[in-house]
Amino acid sequence: MYETHRGEIFHHGQDATKKLEGNSVEPVTYADHGWTVRARLPVRYDIVQSPDLFSMQNRDILLEAYNKTKVPYRRVVIIDNQVNQLYQDRIRQYFEHFLTDYQILPFYTSEQEKNLELVERILQELAALQVPRRSRPVIAIGGGVLLDTVGMAASLYRRGIPYVRVPTTLLALVDAAIGIKTSVNFQMHKNYLGSYYPPLLTLLDRTFLQTLDTRHICNGMAEILKVALIKDKELFELLEKHNAVLIAEKFQGRGVPELVIRHAIQGMLEELAPNLWEYELNRLMDFGHSFSPVFEMQALPRLLHGEAVAIDMAISTLLAYQRNLLSLDERDRIFRLMKNLGLPTFLPLCEPSLLYKALQETVKHRDGLQRLPLPTAIGSADFFNDISFGEIEMAVNLLKQRSD
Amino acid sequence: MYETHRGEIFHHGQDATKKLEGNSVEPVTYADHGWTVRARLPVRYDIVQSPDLFSMQNRDILLEAYNKTKVPYRRVVIIDNQVNQLYQDRIRQYFEHFLTDYQILPFYTSEQEKNLELVERILQELAALQVPRRSRPVIAIGGGVLLDTVGMAASLYRRGIPYVRVPTTLLALVDAAIGIKTSVNFQMHKNYLGSYYPPLLTLLDRTFLQTLDTRHICNGMAEILKVALIKDKELFELLEKHNAVLIAEKFQGRGVPELVIRHAIQGMLEELAPNLWEYELNRLMDFGHSFSPVFEMQALPRLLHGEAVAIDMAISTLLAYQRNLLSLDERDRIFRLMKNLGLPTFLPLCEPSLLYKALQETVKHRDGLQRLPLPTAIGSADFFNDISFGEIEMAVNLLKQRSD
Repeated sequence: MYETHRGEIFHHGQDATKKLEGNSVEPVTYADHGWTVRARLPVRYDIVQSPDLFSMQNRDILLEAYNKTKVPYRRVVIIDNQVNQLYQDRIRQYFEHFLTDYQILPFYTSEQEKNLELVERILQELAALQVPRRSRPVIAIGGGVLLDTVGMAASLYRRGIPYVRVPTTLLALVDAAIGIKTSVNFQMHKNYLGSYYPPLLTLLDRTFLQTLDTRHICNGMAEILKVALIKDKELFELLEKHNAVLIAEKFQGRGVPELVIRHAIQGMLEELAPNLWEYELNRLMDFGHSFSPVFEMQALPRLLHGEAVAIDMAISTLLAYQRNLLSLDERDRIFRLMKNLGLPTFLPLCEPSLLYKALQETVKHRDGLQRLPLPTAIGSADFFNDISFGEIEMAVNLLKQRSD
Repeated sequence: MYETHRGEIFHHGQDATKKLEGNSVEPVTYADHGWTVRARLPVRYDIVQSPDLFSMQNRDILLEAYNKTKVPYRRVVIIDNQVNQLYQDRIRQYFEHFLTDYQILPFYTSEQEKNLELVERILQELAALQVPRRSRPVIAIGGGVLLDTVGMAASLYRRGIPYVRVPTTLLALVDAAIGIKTSVNFQMHKNYLGSYYPPLLTLLDRTFLQTLDTRHICNGMAEILKVALIKDKELFELLEKHNAVLIAEKFQGRGVPELVIRHAIQGMLEELAPNLWEYELNRLMDFGHSFSPVFEMQALPRLLHGEAVAIDMAISTLLAYQRNLLSLDERDRIFRLMKNLGLPTFLPLCEPSLLYKALQETVKHRDGLQRLPLPTAIGSADFFNDISFGEIEMAVNLLKQRSD
């Protein structure tokens, strides 16, 4: 895992005598002496489908492939409180069998408490256990809030220790567990603080979804629909055809559920992997995430993340329709599918003025431009920078009428 | 600055059909489907000597070379309270002249308050100003505590905004301002939390050192002596010859002061640049930092960082002498120079049991091994993993005698 890599220094100035490791010296704009440091951080992580993670036949979570320490297995498990209540016997039995030393630390997590204080409490636990720098990976088991906050703590503790993600909600499985972003909310700003910090590994086990309620299955559907709408027509058609059974059977078994998850993650990764650190701010995966951060935070705890994203997608779909990017038929197809996926499309809180303010906040995060992804057909999208208040107002009025 | 770079995804499994961007697929140890994401984060930063930073002729801090935003100059300046009191007229006048919009935010900093709470207060200020993601770099002006904490805040705010370091103490100039580590203390652990986060730029202006007291000049001397002892005999000899005038004249002017600083930074960079993220845990620059983190924290606020490092170097020098790595003559030469540099070599707090405990803590941070750098001559060093309690006891007894 810890691939070596060498940075370089270039020394500038009239009497520069040392030039290390031979590459060309960058042009310098400074008259006096100086150095330029250049390096590349190699990143690698795996996302692995690992059904029935805690069956005694499954050894994926023991991380044997990653265990270069030659010391007996020691692990710290940070688990969502609710997941722990549902699965603790099984999980404890598993680790008891395989590990010489482990701690299971349950944390209560919620979007409202996704803050620095939660990260600090995780850090306190890690410090109390004197978790060393490399040889005791932290295993995070839970939904998006747990994965994002444990990831942030892992990135800060001793400036970074290895961690593993095990998503237990559909939303986390197709979203939080895929990229390298960690985060907490700050004041009223959604995911305002965080880091880019890759895990060792993400392990995907859909059997956890059996204990999710329908609302949380639908919540995850929103992020799958996002991928479908902006880049994967085949996925959209799979959702149209199979939404009822996917929701009813909670993504269990192979066949369609597996195919849908694979499409969703593949689509996500195609967008995220070439842009892990978000140097490029035109991000298709921001679809559904331009207006929603503000009203999602204001509507807490009423609204789930996927629900907020769904409302944003509904607004964006109408904006696209108003600009003739989508036909009436496409528009209706999208709204029909959203309805069948059990997703909301409106909230009275979403007044045009609030949405416009939200877009202005988003502009600050996108270096001065709207960079708003809008669908240009089912399965494709483009970026727009000139959405006006009037257009938002029109879209909201249409949504209001639909929801009456 | 924002070089693009492309990550890659590899899809595994029996029916893997997509393979993006063509590199060879890594061997996978998992039977089921999965993906591997690989990418490289390019890092580049400059360290530039920029004398008299706030003279109207000097435009380095305006970052013209880095200003790709095409918007009028806007900057946030976070400055150590004491530095602000000394230089505020000059600094304000400068920014007033050149910038269309700026904020100067003074923060009281001290090693005792180098904690998460300070970072959070900085984050609150950034959020209150709605600092955007890229177009308003934060300029940090102060000593090591200020640079480390502003760096940490800059790395977390919106998952990273650009920042610039201006060290105002000798210690920060040769140490905190050179690498990419940011940090805060946590509980009683020194620099226990943080991130690896490169600045855009470090600007070195020795004129700030004019207002440092002698003790703080000597404090910085400790980190310079560190570089000299373990890898630069020429620097050691420069210090032997010029210590009195360097201290008296506070590193002003060109010639020897400039040469000493250049040696110190060059030596530091030769060690840091190939190992920016510390994948390699055998670090020569840890010399003086193996025993000190524990007693430095316990002795606060009595001891400055460089003073703690000096005591650690004294212990390490004796450990080396006891192992016949250093001759009696070399040992005495080192102690003589430490004395001439105004550095302490002992503290009654440093009982053998405490030092041994400190070493055990350090072992946790070095993946299970002591990896203790000890000088093998003046200007060279090697790593040792088998220092015993008895050796530490013997070294401490010798130090006690010397200090009587």
